[in-house]
Amino acid sequence: MSFKAPRGTVDLLPKDSKKWRFVEEIIKNICHRFHFEEIRTPLFEHTEVFQRGVGDTTDIVQKEMYTFEDRGGRSLTLRPEGTAPVVRAFVENKLFGDPNQPTKLYYFASMFRYERPQKGRMRQLNQFGVEVLGSANPAVDAEVIDLAMTVYKELGLKSLKLVINSLGDHESRNNHRQALIEHFTPHKDELCKDCQSRLQQNPLRILDCKTDRDHPAMKTAPSILDYLNEESKDYFEQVKDYLTAMNIEYTIDPKLVRGLDYYNHTAFEIMSEAEGFGAITTLAGGGRYNGLVEELGGPATPGIGFGMGVERLLMALEAENIDIPVNNELDCYIVAFGENVEKEAVRITHNLRQSGIQVDKDYQGRKPKGQFKAADRLKVKFVLVLGESELEKQVINVKTMETGEQIEVPLAHLAESIKEKL
Amino acid sequence: MSFKAPRGTVDLLPKDSKKWRFVEEIIKNICHRFHFEEIRTPLFEHTEVFQRGVGDTTDIVQKEMYTFEDRGGRSLTLRPEGTAPVVRAFVENKLFGDPNQPTKLYYFASMFRYERPQKGRMRQLNQFGVEVLGSANPAVDAEVIDLAMTVYKELGLKSLKLVINSLGDHESRNNHRQALIEHFTPHKDELCKDCQSRLQQNPLRILDCKTDRDHPAMKTAPSILDYLNEESKDYFEQVKDYLTAMNIEYTIDPKLVRGLDYYNHTAFEIMSEAEGFGAITTLAGGGRYNGLVEELGGPATPGIGFGMGVERLLMALEAENIDIPVNNELDCYIVAFGENVEKEAVRITHNLRQSGIQVDKDYQGRKPKGQFKAADRLKVKFVLVLGESELEKQVINVKTMETGEQIEVPLAHLAESIKEKL
Repeated sequence: MSFKAPRGTVDLLPKDSKKWRFVEEIIKNICHRFHFEEIRTPLFEHTEVFQRGVGDTTDIVQKEMYTFEDRGGRSLTLRPEGTAPVVRAFVENKLFGDPNQPTKLYYFASMFRYERPQKGRMRQLNQFGVEVLGSANPAVDAEVIDLAMTVYKELGLKSLKLVINSLGDHESRNNHRQALIEHFTPHKDELCKDCQSRLQQNPLRILDCKTDRDHPAMKTAPSILDYLNEESKDYFEQVKDYLTAMNIEYTIDPKLVRGLDYYNHTAFEIMSEAEGFGAITTLAGGGRYNGLVEELGGPATPGIGFGMGVERLLMALEAENIDIPVNNELDCYIVAFGENVEKEAVRITHNLRQSGIQVDKDYQGRKPKGQFKAADRLKVKFVLVLGESELEKQVINVKTMETGEQIEVPLAHLAESIKEKL
Repeated sequence: MSFKAPRGTVDLLPKDSKKWRFVEEIIKNICHRFHFEEIRTPLFEHTEVFQRGVGDTTDIVQKEMYTFEDRGGRSLTLRPEGTAPVVRAFVENKLFGDPNQPTKLYYFASMFRYERPQKGRMRQLNQFGVEVLGSANPAVDAEVIDLAMTVYKELGLKSLKLVINSLGDHESRNNHRQALIEHFTPHKDELCKDCQSRLQQNPLRILDCKTDRDHPAMKTAPSILDYLNEESKDYFEQVKDYLTAMNIEYTIDPKLVRGLDYYNHTAFEIMSEAEGFGAITTLAGGGRYNGLVEELGGPATPGIGFGMGVERLLMALEAENIDIPVNNELDCYIVAFGENVEKEAVRITHNLRQSGIQVDKDYQGRKPKGQFKAADRLKVKFVLVLGESELEKQVINVKTMETGEQIEVPLAHLAESIKEKL
């Protein structure tokens, strides 16, 4: 009988977990420079949080959620995305009452989506994301985009494409919505079944449809940018000006939409244009959602955020041949042999570790030759050799692997001596 | 309509997430010194992994698991404990084939148990744990205990109690089992319903029972230590000798048992004896499980590990009044006012952040006075003041908050100047 990780999930093994930690540390450092603070929400929420916060008409809610009843009969859902839980936590914990506003939060979290697994699309995926709640300043939109771009640039990615759009305010969206309905209604029967129901419910999402994307009516569909009112136009201009002030290049794509009613103004995506990166090129996506906090029971509060796939980020680094520097070295390995030496080796190992030094020893009863081989495989900096004669003299033989130099060090001064050499 | 986090779960907010990160960093550093490497397994497993790996007769599996069917009809279970998934990953990824043995792994992971929530017992809880697979050396048992104790000691805990026991090998356990059945059978009708069924299935677990703990037969129950064969006795002696060699104090408690068949030899728990810590005093528990890898489909491989609650660890630190040092300071806050200054403030913020400096600015349209107040609240090291006159001269006024010193710095040299002062 053998067991496998569930379909669409993977184990992150030591050789890769080092890379993840390296990337996570860089991202956290950037977040702190941008003055974002970490939040961690539970792994599951009451299902309604996502029905409300992501939207009943979305694919995520309709098809992709891991929903189950707990033993008390409550419907719970494993987090499929990061924004709704953070907004729920913002409301429940009354973070809007803090005088330091806006509230700038970041998270690293696993997400769960029941999709057909493929390269770059897993059922358990990991996202880094941020949310800024409490400011309707276009400088915040630019700041959030800047943060995402800084992450990619600092990790060394070059083939990046930032695409932005504006969905405008409520009035602008409504006018555009009417224009879309008028535009697509004559073609209703030619559209896919999903788009037929989207036509009244949520016509903006027709522009997103993969099935109908080659339909001629798509090309001539009215652009949101022609329906922005003065205020929305001005808002979008300011976002663009701030991006330019920071030397951040962008492309405008009026087809970049987000289907939910409470999304408004800025929407953006960051894509990789690296060769061989694959069909799914989106690395991160985000936008402004000025109605979501109210939707989840809080006071009217503007918000903006993005989500970034960690797996995709690592794939993009690989596609651009960027090595993640990981430290595979160990400071010391103790080679011990002879009668009664083992207990002293355990004691020395313990003492060196308490002094802050990385140490390992043999636990397999290997002969000296095998222990030296093990030390080689582990690329240690120092091999410490302890036999009966050393033990008797209360010394240990320290070999510096880089130079081959060997010296005898009294056991009483071993930790200091190693620390000096490190 | 308002939403709450599911019962038994909490949000970790910025004021606390800093503390968690601090504790996690210390623990990771200790793991690396002990030459343990990180593994991350999926959040859920096929339910059978826990039925087999934790055991069908345990409370966890019978009463406490979050089990559900995915959309494909497979039974999945949110991880209730860390050992079975790590062993499943060890087998599936053939880590036993690596020449560097034993395989020393650590994890930080959320666990899920459907229990009545109370202080120190949540439905989503967080554990740090380690597993060493591939060595039956008693020095490894001592190493694993040393690691756990090092974590607590390095964080400053003083009121610790380490309790150890030996369950012996298969033969010793079997002999003890027979003795237990003979001992409890005359009292069968006086025992609770659970213990009545444990009597044949798993008599060792009777010793664990909270309902029957005051029954007179408990006190006179045969001790496992009287049933250890020579080999098991010798193993236990060696573990104790190694602990003594490292100056680690311990108490032996023959009632410390682990009910599952594949647990053997060393079992241990670490408790807090701090006043006011509460009724649940166990901080960490672990032991050797030489049959588990085979049970999950792998080659015969000895193993040992422990799990440590992160919430309990933080509670213990609080009970001993140990402050976790967290940095609440921000390097710089930019106070900007006047026409056309905003865009320059955004640009300066961006540039300083790119230079590695932590910066924030106002996004709420506050007047200068409000901006200065915000800077005060954030305990910044430097307030950078930019008005129209500064902008015209291409300088910025840098006020060092600790000394009150104010100087004008050319914008072109701002980042260097701040970095020198930091």
